[in-house]
Amino acid sequence: MAVYTKQIQVTAPGKSTKEFTHEIETGLHESGLKEGAVTVFCCHTSCSLVIMENADPSARRDLERFIDRLVPEDDPDFTHTYEGPDDMPSHIKMALTRTAEVIPFVNGRLCLGTWQGVFLWEHRVRSHSRRIVLSYQGE
Amino acid sequence: MAVYTKQIQVTAPGKSTKEFTHEIETGLHESGLKEGAVTVFCCHTSCSLVIMENADPSARRDLERFIDRLVPEDDPDFTHTYEGPDDMPSHIKMALTRTAEVIPFVNGRLCLGTWQGVFLWEHRVRSHSRRIVLSYQGE
Amino acid sequence: MAVYTKQIQVTAPGKSTKEFTHEIETGLHESGLKEGAVTVFCCHTSCSLVIMENADPSARRDLERFIDRLVPEDDPDFTHTYEGPDDMPSHIKMALTRTAEVIPFVNGRLCLGTWQGVFLWEHRVRSHSRRIVLSYQGE
Repeated sequence: MAVYTKQIQVTAPGKSTKEFTHEIETGLHESGLKEGAVTVFCCHTSCSLVIMENADPSARRDLERFIDRLVPEDDPDFTHTYEGPDDMPSHIKMALTRTAEVIPFVNGRLCLGTWQGVFLWEHRVRSHSRRIVLSYQGE
Repeated sequence: MAVYTKQIQVTAPGKSTKEFTHEIETGLHESGLKEGAVTVFCCHTSCSLVIMENADPSARRDLERFIDRLVPEDDPDFTHTYEGPDDMPSHIKMALTRTAEVIPFVNGRLCLGTWQGVFLWEHRVRSHSRRIVLSYQGE
Repeated sequence: MAVYTKQIQVTAPGKSTKEFTHEIETGLHESGLKEGAVTVFCCHTSCSLVIMENADPSARRDLERFIDRLVPEDDPDFTHTYEGPDDMPSHIKMALTRTAEVIPFVNGRLCLGTWQGVFLWEHRVRSHSRRIVLSYQGE
């Protein structure tokens, strides 16, 4: 058993999802590990992670539009607004999705389903470079 | 430290939850590991995982009804609909719940609370056999 | 590689969030591990975990108010109500947030972002002492 940690930067367009499955696979090859699990951790509170269908972009667009409607910017109850109207909705969308994902791997390959991709979900209106930590553990 | 990986198939009725805690315990016994954590990973984007009360089925029925109302099938904004009206709601319900759960174990037993069970949550109308990967790490 | 498991109790005020990042750091020091990941697991189905901004308390208040509005107590569809009107909403809020978080660590320090704190989110009206299991794995 060994551990291999890697930090990457991922940038998604504002209010959008960006796949980075390939970067996780690259780190797995670098680690030399064959069987175990990788923790994907997002070091921010206004963006999040989601493992989503990566074939048809319309599925992600519908998902993005749904959460935008569920957590609208103009909610009169919000008081935490000094960074702009997209500040508080970003935190809430993050809390309703995921900060960490853990993905098993076998034979040096991630155990993802056929249609699964790992995405950074940027909830702010403006694009940001986001820090993601990948922690591989296995043998 | 060692790793033990096992793949299982779980089938829940359509739009329903199905407990499979026992299958996770069975794999733990097979692994021979006593202390560590198991990653439970769902290899699909139209069903998900939830750790929920397993005593009174009415709690799960209320939960299922709530999310069905939160993400209705007849949303006119959905464009990703070629697999039917339950296609896009399934992806959204998945994104709002969990793809991976990680459960510690000690003395060869899962550290679940008294009322906690691990469930597959099928979001499609039709029942499917779903692939779940269990990755045990520990000593 | 080694594993270190620790159980702690955390108490948040009713319908509120309580940070316990420091307790996770304390366990990390005790483990003597330098590089790996810690699983934080909540052994209950009516409270949950969230990694949220820990600087401005107004962000957490807005988040708490949002989910309270999203899952109101007086929903006439709820049937699982024998523990009171906050029973079923607590389970639903739990399912929409997280039961487990996994946080990588390097050089004996958690890889949390500048504004990230780990919180217990109590969904019941009354405060409870909650059991959290911390499972550190690494070297």
